[in-house]
Amino acid sequence: MMFDKHRAIFERAQTACRERHCWSPFPDMPGKYPDAEAAQAKGLAAFKGQLGKRFVLDQPGHVSDVGEEVSPYTQDPLGISYPQSDIDTLFNAAENAMPTWAEATPETRIGVLMEVLDVLYRDHLFEVAHAVMHTAGQSFNMAYAGSGVNALDRGIEALVYAKQAMDAVAPTAQWERRFGSAKIALEKTYRVIPRGVAVCFSCASFPTWNAWPSMLASLATGNPVIVKPHPVTVLPMAISVRVFRQVLARAGFDANLVTMALDSTLEPIGKLLVKHPKTAIVDFTGSTRFGQWVEQNAYPALSFTETAGCNTVVLESCDDLDAVLRSLATTLCMFSAQMCTSPQNIYIARRGVQTPQGLVPFSDVARQLANAVAALTSEPKKAAMILATIQSPQTLELLANMALLAHEYKGVETKNAVDILLTPAAYRHPDYPNARTSTPLMLKVSTEHRSLYGEERFGPISFVIACDDAQDALRQATQDVKELGGLTAFLYSLDEAFISQAETAYAKAGAQLTINLTGPMPLNFAAAYSDYHVTGLNPAGNASLTHLAFVASRFCISQSRRPVKTITI
Amino acid sequence: MMFDKHRAIFERAQTACRERHCWSPFPDMPGKYPDAEAAQAKGLAAFKGQLGKRFVLDQPGHVSDVGEEVSPYTQDPLGISYPQSDIDTLFNAAENAMPTWAEATPETRIGVLMEVLDVLYRDHLFEVAHAVMHTAGQSFNMAYAGSGVNALDRGIEALVYAKQAMDAVAPTAQWERRFGSAKIALEKTYRVIPRGVAVCFSCASFPTWNAWPSMLASLATGNPVIVKPHPVTVLPMAISVRVFRQVLARAGFDANLVTMALDSTLEPIGKLLVKHPKTAIVDFTGSTRFGQWVEQNAYPALSFTETAGCNTVVLESCDDLDAVLRSLATTLCMFSAQMCTSPQNIYIARRGVQTPQGLVPFSDVARQLANAVAALTSEPKKAAMILATIQSPQTLELLANMALLAHEYKGVETKNAVDILLTPAAYRHPDYPNARTSTPLMLKVSTEHRSLYGEERFGPISFVIACDDAQDALRQATQDVKELGGLTAFLYSLDEAFISQAETAYAKAGAQLTINLTGPMPLNFAAAYSDYHVTGLNPAGNASLTHLAFVASRFCISQSRRPVKTITI
Repeated sequence: MMFDKHRAIFERAQTACRERHCWSPFPDMPGKYPDAEAAQAKGLAAFKGQLGKRFVLDQPGHVSDVGEEVSPYTQDPLGISYPQSDIDTLFNAAENAMPTWAEATPETRIGVLMEVLDVLYRDHLFEVAHAVMHTAGQSFNMAYAGSGVNALDRGIEALVYAKQAMDAVAPTAQWERRFGSAKIALEKTYRVIPRGVAVCFSCASFPTWNAWPSMLASLATGNPVIVKPHPVTVLPMAISVRVFRQVLARAGFDANLVTMALDSTLEPIGKLLVKHPKTAIVDFTGSTRFGQWVEQNAYPALSFTETAGCNTVVLESCDDLDAVLRSLATTLCMFSAQMCTSPQNIYIARRGVQTPQGLVPFSDVARQLANAVAALTSEPKKAAMILATIQSPQTLELLANMALLAHEYKGVETKNAVDILLTPAAYRHPDYPNARTSTPLMLKVSTEHRSLYGEERFGPISFVIACDDAQDALRQATQDVKELGGLTAFLYSLDEAFISQAETAYAKAGAQLTINLTGPMPLNFAAAYSDYHVTGLNPAGNASLTHLAFVASRFCISQSRRPVKTITI
Repeated sequence: MMFDKHRAIFERAQTACRERHCWSPFPDMPGKYPDAEAAQAKGLAAFKGQLGKRFVLDQPGHVSDVGEEVSPYTQDPLGISYPQSDIDTLFNAAENAMPTWAEATPETRIGVLMEVLDVLYRDHLFEVAHAVMHTAGQSFNMAYAGSGVNALDRGIEALVYAKQAMDAVAPTAQWERRFGSAKIALEKTYRVIPRGVAVCFSCASFPTWNAWPSMLASLATGNPVIVKPHPVTVLPMAISVRVFRQVLARAGFDANLVTMALDSTLEPIGKLLVKHPKTAIVDFTGSTRFGQWVEQNAYPALSFTETAGCNTVVLESCDDLDAVLRSLATTLCMFSAQMCTSPQNIYIARRGVQTPQGLVPFSDVARQLANAVAALTSEPKKAAMILATIQSPQTLELLANMALLAHEYKGVETKNAVDILLTPAAYRHPDYPNARTSTPLMLKVSTEHRSLYGEERFGPISFVIACDDAQDALRQATQDVKELGGLTAFLYSLDEAFISQAETAYAKAGAQLTINLTGPMPLNFAAAYSDYHVTGLNPAGNASLTHLAFVASRFCISQSRRPVKTITI
């Protein structure tokens, strides 16, 4: 049985989920991968071998071919065409594939899915990493970690919780009770019944990190999955879907448990999929607007969403302002802030930040933070490693429009003027001279400019916001989270009473809070098995990776009961 | 700590939920209650003492008084007036009550809630039973068991699963990882954050059975509850709400964690409550129509619904037809089939039912079943015990209309005529000569008359349906369940292959199946800790009592993390 092969790692993962300490079965850096050089060369070759070709995926209902991916590194089309299938054919194939899979035991299913993750890790990790680089535009290291091993870890984690939820259902029971003078003895059977076909949307900038765990949560509980990748970032999911299909088929199951539904930017099929009468579950990662549409319209399907929001920083006081600003600058730059966990809004009391050296005025803090960002991004080689590229041309447009808007605001004479701390500009990537890049836009504003910062501005755009005082900063920040959404939050304070107050306020607002962290760890790093991702308490999404609520409603329980058979001796 | 007082019973309940055997801490019959006679007299006195008076409930926002309850036993108004509160005041009070409750540990909350159940059991069980009799119209025995101790058991069960879901969240963790040459050590705190105010709708005919576990699931996970009873069945929930408030207050919490929102039949407030901006959770028990409206419109609130459907019987073959028909007849009569688990549609092959004595033709089976029902209901004393009363005058109207409709159908000459097996008539209750009563309406139809049986006909109305053959019977029955909803199903067959086929078909359709059961146990009896109630797989409701999915999404998880404090030695 496949599960036995993976039992040791799975049980170790169960312990990690329970205790939430640091653990992963995978090396955290590409250089530590077994026989790293050969594996990386093989992955690169697999990626390059696919360019300009038809992607082979033997799924049913082929009607045409699509493909519009452009590498953010070369700004050249990848030239890959993917088979587009008829939607009803995919749903029918998924439904037909379901019964055998649903009847397998949870351990059988989880064994097969652990094997999928293992095959992804052993045979396709660097292929996926290059695919992520040249669609999402991440750096190689982030593609390896964030879209590779961390995403695999999130997948294992989803399997752990799926197993926990299913294990809570006894498979059989004996039940005996007296009714008057008679004894009734029943044997009962309880079955885990999958909800039905799941549709899993993956996003353009971080395709695997949410999609893998969502797919695994649905599959572990018996549901087939139709993957709907963002049309500009298909390849990482196409590779994934093919691996799922191959491993499922090798294990004797119907490969159509996992298929891919494709569309183009001009002719989207997202709403069609959500409203399809056979859709039972929707997992969505992407824009807040479409995510909220999914939440409102998925019924009767269940929806699990992760969108975006305004991630906030409250900087009240600290021991070492330079260290704080270095950490903040790094996190503001990481993958050009195209992560759902990137901070955007930094709330500071107008009088400034208290440090052991005295009060540093608001404007000085803002300027020093901008300088720290500039220091990280002025040298192309360093910039390339941290900023990587801009996934979408629309982000460049947004940067330009926001800069323009800031200039207009700047012209308005008010007490609290808008100031442009950093103006965005393309930097020249040392390895990819045509890469789509931009250094960050940073604005100094005050709370009266909420029309500027009061929504997600996707990309390397941030706001240093002058507030009345620390209390006002915390109040504004947590209100913005509650109203506009927020996944992460960051606090710097030496005042334990203020910290405690902030913990309570952010816990209620539903942003995962990191306090007084400096040093080399990216502030927004979310560790599988330890950090919950999204709370469900604000508009940034309704699903949390991973707790029982992410898996428990993906299946139902049907039972049958009958009198115990009398054994004649 | 209150939890310690109840720990032994709670842990015993945890075992029962895990193993799903028969267990209850409560005596199953009123006669076995400790010092039964005195307790019953006290309960009756408490109930009588309330009649014609104002119900004292010290909740905020009092604006007027309402009360329109009429006893189905006497058809006299109870004359009780209840305080109607301003809705916004209730929501604000609930929100204000939440923080302290949310900050208590799960064990503290569950301890207080176990105490609530204990106080209901010790001090109010017979008061509640009489209240249920004279609003819902149940018999005394059913009011004691189904609306008393079984409902308490369902409540404990909800607490067990709530604890399991919350226990899966570690309260704290230590996390250490190297980033480059630096070691980052974080201490992490995870908090269970309640969603917000829950609204719990209870129904007219079975007020406590669903409402208590729903209230407890929300409260255990930290959410306040506003109870919205059906305006004709308020008293059982008013007593419950008062007990919750008293015990909460005694335990040092804000009584406004539980309040009651009242309306009248003429001016309903249900939609207002569901769409209130502060509503975070809706539990609904009642009509399919409003239940589906809730499911569609609750967003952004979560919804948990239990409505109704067409519960089905497939009678293919059996050892002892008389025993089968006696069991079916009993279940068709129980509380005049005003239970969400009562069967309505009985599917039989046209050629008949196979027995050891040979094939019994369809018409003979139908006639014998009608005779069995008539035998149970022809003698008023026996009828009173099993049929009890008809909760609503509308049910009498429906009976009359359906009988009329059947007469019209009967006049139509077709190959498969509609036949009236039993005509409903009031029976004279021996203790309550003015009781609202009716013997059942039973019709013999065939599958071409789906317009008659293809929806829930609430009350003592059933259909014996001629099908092409056993396969057709099973197909029709399970399709009707899938399409129209169904909670329970009943199968009689000696053919193991057919049984296995039916188990799979009903499991997919989502009705809980009872096979070949005869004897004194009511076929539709659902045992807490053992039988799951509602699957969520068909229109009869989306919530299941009780599995993890019923509780896990009622709370979210917020975390905070910070560097481990360095200890200087």
